[in-house]
Amino acid sequence: MVDKNTALNTGMQDGLKFDVAIVGAGISGIYTAYRLTTEGANTGSQVQVFDMNTRIAGRLESVRLPGMPTVQGELGGMRYLTSQKIVTTLIEQVFADQMEAVEFPMGDPADLYMYLRKDRCKQNAWTEAQSRGQKLLTRYYLDDDDIGFSADQLFSKVIYDVLTADPWFRENFGQHVHQVDAYTYVIELTLRQWDQVKPYLTYHFEGSPYDKRLVNDIGFWNLLKDQVSQEGYTFLSTAGGYYSNTINWNAAEAFPYMIGDFSAGAEYKTIAEGFDSTVYAMANDYMRHEGACIWSENKLLTFNRQHPQSATHRYELVFLNLRSNQQWRAYANRLVLAMPRHSLELLDQDNFFFNVNENTELNKNIRSVIKEPAFKILMGFDTPWWNELGITAGHSITDLPMRQCYYFGTAKVTDHSMLLGSYGDMETETFWKALSDDPVKFRPRATRLASQLEVEALNDVAASDTMVKEVVKELRELHGVGIPMPYVTWFKDWGDDPFGAGYHAWKAGYKVQDVMPYMRKPMATEDIHICGEAYSDQQGWVEGAFCEAEKMLQSYFGLPRPSWLPADYYLGW
Amino acid sequence: MVDKNTALNTGMQDGLKFDVAIVGAGISGIYTAYRLTTEGANTGSQVQVFDMNTRIAGRLESVRLPGMPTVQGELGGMRYLTSQKIVTTLIEQVFADQMEAVEFPMGDPADLYMYLRKDRCKQNAWTEAQSRGQKLLTRYYLDDDDIGFSADQLFSKVIYDVLTADPWFRENFGQHVHQVDAYTYVIELTLRQWDQVKPYLTYHFEGSPYDKRLVNDIGFWNLLKDQVSQEGYTFLSTAGGYYSNTINWNAAEAFPYMIGDFSAGAEYKTIAEGFDSTVYAMANDYMRHEGACIWSENKLLTFNRQHPQSATHRYELVFLNLRSNQQWRAYANRLVLAMPRHSLELLDQDNFFFNVNENTELNKNIRSVIKEPAFKILMGFDTPWWNELGITAGHSITDLPMRQCYYFGTAKVTDHSMLLGSYGDMETETFWKALSDDPVKFRPRATRLASQLEVEALNDVAASDTMVKEVVKELRELHGVGIPMPYVTWFKDWGDDPFGAGYHAWKAGYKVQDVMPYMRKPMATEDIHICGEAYSDQQGWVEGAFCEAEKMLQSYFGLPRPSWLPADYYLGW
Repeated sequence: MVDKNTALNTGMQDGLKFDVAIVGAGISGIYTAYRLTTEGANTGSQVQVFDMNTRIAGRLESVRLPGMPTVQGELGGMRYLTSQKIVTTLIEQVFADQMEAVEFPMGDPADLYMYLRKDRCKQNAWTEAQSRGQKLLTRYYLDDDDIGFSADQLFSKVIYDVLTADPWFRENFGQHVHQVDAYTYVIELTLRQWDQVKPYLTYHFEGSPYDKRLVNDIGFWNLLKDQVSQEGYTFLSTAGGYYSNTINWNAAEAFPYMIGDFSAGAEYKTIAEGFDSTVYAMANDYMRHEGACIWSENKLLTFNRQHPQSATHRYELVFLNLRSNQQWRAYANRLVLAMPRHSLELLDQDNFFFNVNENTELNKNIRSVIKEPAFKILMGFDTPWWNELGITAGHSITDLPMRQCYYFGTAKVTDHSMLLGSYGDMETETFWKALSDDPVKFRPRATRLASQLEVEALNDVAASDTMVKEVVKELRELHGVGIPMPYVTWFKDWGDDPFGAGYHAWKAGYKVQDVMPYMRKPMATEDIHICGEAYSDQQGWVEGAFCEAEKMLQSYFGLPRPSWLPADYYLGW
Repeated sequence: MVDKNTALNTGMQDGLKFDVAIVGAGISGIYTAYRLTTEGANTGSQVQVFDMNTRIAGRLESVRLPGMPTVQGELGGMRYLTSQKIVTTLIEQVFADQMEAVEFPMGDPADLYMYLRKDRCKQNAWTEAQSRGQKLLTRYYLDDDDIGFSADQLFSKVIYDVLTADPWFRENFGQHVHQVDAYTYVIELTLRQWDQVKPYLTYHFEGSPYDKRLVNDIGFWNLLKDQVSQEGYTFLSTAGGYYSNTINWNAAEAFPYMIGDFSAGAEYKTIAEGFDSTVYAMANDYMRHEGACIWSENKLLTFNRQHPQSATHRYELVFLNLRSNQQWRAYANRLVLAMPRHSLELLDQDNFFFNVNENTELNKNIRSVIKEPAFKILMGFDTPWWNELGITAGHSITDLPMRQCYYFGTAKVTDHSMLLGSYGDMETETFWKALSDDPVKFRPRATRLASQLEVEALNDVAASDTMVKEVVKELRELHGVGIPMPYVTWFKDWGDDPFGAGYHAWKAGYKVQDVMPYMRKPMATEDIHICGEAYSDQQGWVEGAFCEAEKMLQSYFGLPRPSWLPADYYLGW
């Protein structure tokens, strides 16, 4: 089992000199440190990691609630796809002795709820109706030719229609898409093929405001509304479960995201010891090297070029040690900013690198992604009340502001159990923000298995009282039954500093195939690199962070492809 | 007629010394300069005004489109209420010789459209049904006791229900509210009375997540959902016409806003020469004083305290002259920051005044208001096509992303005419942002009355081509008829720097009665003042800016109440 007590150095060492400074101890930062030392030729002293947080792993955070020692709760990223080879191989091969890959159960659509416009049905209601030769009527006023489609089916139909309307696509990739039956469209493009399609796909619908425009230059909401009307868009957005999928991001990037990640064949997995185990395993491996150090609770304020004649190292980094509130300086030759957009924006924007007037391209590209808010609330219940409704795992979906809930840890009916409310959402952000800001905290209570002391130990991370009551009220409406109050809660807002977002999405109109490599080395004359999930082509996934770090390491740090990675695995632009 | 060619000084004068620096030449800044000189004892040299823009009047901007010399278009604020005495008296008495107050026509609800969930009706459909003893059924799945209410009626009902559920309110103010008939609730509180109610009103609904909480601490969306369900909220939000009214802002502040501003008796007026005339009239009055100067295209970067022993003036202000890109310094004893939240946030946040660590209360209070995005698009048409639909003035409402359109300037059927699309909206911001960012501009065309040269002169402010096509597509769906393309457009995004928002709304949980006076003098030991619409109790209205500036002038600049202002007029907290 992986040791999560990785040693962190909360101190400071003014004048410290080394080769590579990695700022950000999340997935891409720790991966970079791990690869540079364990698989590259660097000593630990040459590679130093910094983070302003008290812990590592960034937007992965696996926690346990009192009374349920065997149930993992995930506040951040919670799963991977087996098609994602870096994360899969690291977990299932490289670090297989330290962690156990397990299925991420999605439950049975025949049991899970969909509650939209006060109408409750099961998630398989669409396919059930179709199997009887009927069209399921909902409370959405869809266009005639869209009626009867489930949200997933309608997404595929729209993407199929847009792809096949483009003569260029038909000629070059037409053989990869086909309609199977009235509701089923199959799109079988690899990510490598999608990269050939995305920059050139053109929207061919005469009379449309977007006719003859690159799909890359159209917002996904703009495109969906054009295809299925605003009501159809609202249906896709709500019944799809994630408003975040249908915000007005880059439509060309949205296509493979919707098809690749949400297609029926995708296998979701996670780690029994918590999804953040993978970061700790890499961090521990890095820490075995002499001189390796993770400087936590140290916040990068700015960095400057050193004078080439007088200095031994290229860059001076100014840190604020948060415990002592003292500034200190370190010196490095190469700088890896392993951070998302908002963290970059919190750095000194007037230094030589970010300076708006001098470096407008960098500033434009930093803003090429949308910051997506994400609230999460874990709630511990005395018993898995959802078992009585026939639900064992997976998630129910609603257009109520909570949008969806995941049922976690339901091994036995008599056990304590966990539910995840997830509000990863532009539209409902303000609804929850007013509640999460409320200073009156939810008061936990002792149970048969958890003491008062144990549940009160989580008071710092408890949700507000009104928030918990509102969530429970919505759970009651969603499920149509009485729901008990939880005994403990854990709330996390990824919009808080330094993250500023749960995940990211490309804006329409940016040439993603150019911005991605640009970010990995924004200035030709400087050894400064930006990597991570934010500027990847698998945003919201751990794999996106891995791929960007890996390409950066191969291009600029002379590392060969990892021996453990399948030779034909495509890393993207 | 007011002269809008107010002289602006785009130059700089390093070392300039004077008494009062007013930064921001919008409504509150110009009002402050006008009152300090014309009605106070100050010379023009003592009072200097600064603005980074090329023009004054801030978020008021009245424009004309080629081919319609007599039709005023408003990109920003467009009207006032006759109950608002500062703006009304300035326009209709003080500057009556320079401008003409005219009715702001709202048209006839029997002619205007409501188009929701693909269902089209006239705006009087609810009262029509009621007069026949029927309940209008819409495509919203309202709770039983809310069915048949128009959005305005349902807002009043909710507010009535919440007010009268509070025993304290019933005892002290119960006589001011009554139900007239099944659909009509009358709430007759003055703004002075509302100020007595807002801080103490308590939410009394047993079993609700918000039971026994101050309404001031509840978000308006949270409260509305609790009262009328999420579907009811969606109905109020869309049929009400303004998502901005129903964002999750401070519910106690929302009550008088909804009742006071949108009640049937309110009389809307505007100025024939453009609503910004009022700012120009005051600016011209100020400019008549010797030494008066409006330094335009000069951006305040920061300000510092001067050493008391060595300096003649208390504050050093550092400006960037935008034309020359050179910095210069000016010295003043008093500083009025007549700017909204985002403009304040663009100033040097590390100076002695804003410094986050030292002045957390100021920073918290600056963030006590929500920045509301506002896009506007003016479109010039060859003829007022809406006349054929029986529409002369007012606005139609839809749940399509455009949300509403105002019909302007429809004097004669054969005249050119103007339509205002207005997207003042959190929810649809990203929909339009992707379109407005598109670099392909709409290409205007010459008409019978406007030359190609005239229409092309507006190319810098033209909307994007896809945006215009999308708006026209939505206008067609909203009206259910063919609509011609416009010949010219004018686009404005108030979210751009330095404004950062069209208007503002108080967050839930802030003690507004404390924050308002706080902002007018945040530090007891410093003569630094913040005023304007953002931190007023009439947000989104010119009157809010006037009231804050007036209270600041009376409290800290020793000015008496203006002679022209009714003695009993209430200026708020």
